[in-house]
Amino acid sequence: MKASVLFSGGKDSCLTAKMLSDFFDVELITTSFGLLSNWEKAEEVAKKLNFPFKILKLDEEILKQAADQTVKDGFPNNGIKYIHQKTLEEVAKNSKIISDGVRRDDKVPVLSISEIRSFEDKFDVHYVQPLAGYSWKTINILVEKFFVIEEHKSISSFVGSEYEFELREIIKREYGDEKIKEIFPQNHTHSLVVDVKI
Amino acid sequence: MKASVLFSGGKDSCLTAKMLSDFFDVELITTSFGLLSNWEKAEEVAKKLNFPFKILKLDEEILKQAADQTVKDGFPNNGIKYIHQKTLEEVAKNSKIISDGVRRDDKVPVLSISEIRSFEDKFDVHYVQPLAGYSWKTINILVEKFFVIEEHKSISSFVGSEYEFELREIIKREYGDEKIKEIFPQNHTHSLVVDVKI
Repeated sequence: MKASVLFSGGKDSCLTAKMLSDFFDVELITTSFGLLSNWEKAEEVAKKLNFPFKILKLDEEILKQAADQTVKDGFPNNGIKYIHQKTLEEVAKNSKIISDGVRRDDKVPVLSISEIRSFEDKFDVHYVQPLAGYSWKTINILVEKFFVIEEHKSISSFVGSEYEFELREIIKREYGDEKIKEIFPQNHTHSLVVDVKI
Repeated sequence: MKASVLFSGGKDSCLTAKMLSDFFDVELITTSFGLLSNWEKAEEVAKKLNFPFKILKLDEEILKQAADQTVKDGFPNNGIKYIHQKTLEEVAKNSKIISDGVRRDDKVPVLSISEIRSFEDKFDVHYVQPLAGYSWKTINILVEKFFVIEEHKSISSFVGSEYEFELREIIKREYGDEKIKEIFPQNHTHSLVVDVKI
């Protein structure tokens, strides 16, 4: 049975894929709006993990709406959640089991339990979050066991595969660099799996 | 690294043990107050799963307090949660990683996120709930794949290893059979794993 894992190549989505691979045929999916080659890092990591990899091309209109929301709010949480929801809905058209790397202590992009149930019912799918019962402390133990990771500041020249990178790019193009500094936290980091230990 | 899994021999705790066994050395733990041989079913299933098994003997005073709470409330949820918390605290004295089979859609015995964090901080442990991101529908797919199960009405001659059985027993002894019928749902069932497929 196929399970589609929303995938950035970061430690959480890699661990999610590893956990699910005992039970399902895992395929990895990275969202791109085509503004950046943001899927490249994810594809490299997918090769190391040896799982099939797909790029999900979403309509740029979704990114624009997320950007408008983000600029209006002054912080990116709701914009990122909007992209995540649209990604889930698109994946649900072709997969019965959909998964992501959301952890117990995550704030973004987290659907409420009623949003999760409503999504599952509307699309007749299983939405699985294998890390929802794990703290970051426990996840770090498991990541250390299986993966070698790098950490990158999100405000740097690094282009990762998370939604945030294209969201920043479109806001930069429309509102300039200063807006990015206002909206996005400066100290936020993204992990990237660079090797698999076992 | 050892992980202690609170274990009843039901489908949820069996699946939890299976999931964690990829990452940790699993040991199974069943709580007993010594009123019934309630641990017997769990021990049988533990043998089938081939994991080490321990009985955790808790003070009967805890069971009495849970019974008082249950009779006062007129429903068992808080009494069962109380036993669960006391079990977690006792296990935390000897284990760094503690786990149970609580699912995304469970109501009992569920600790709130602040109770979970407080428990982890106070005892310096990892509390892991591998099924917290899985719905009952998804769990049923996995259970079907790995286990053969039986379902037993909780109001029957069946004595399972869940907290409920000794809680019912002590209330029956102190308040009589009628009280049990008032307090405990008649249609509630407990699953028991009777064979392992893979």
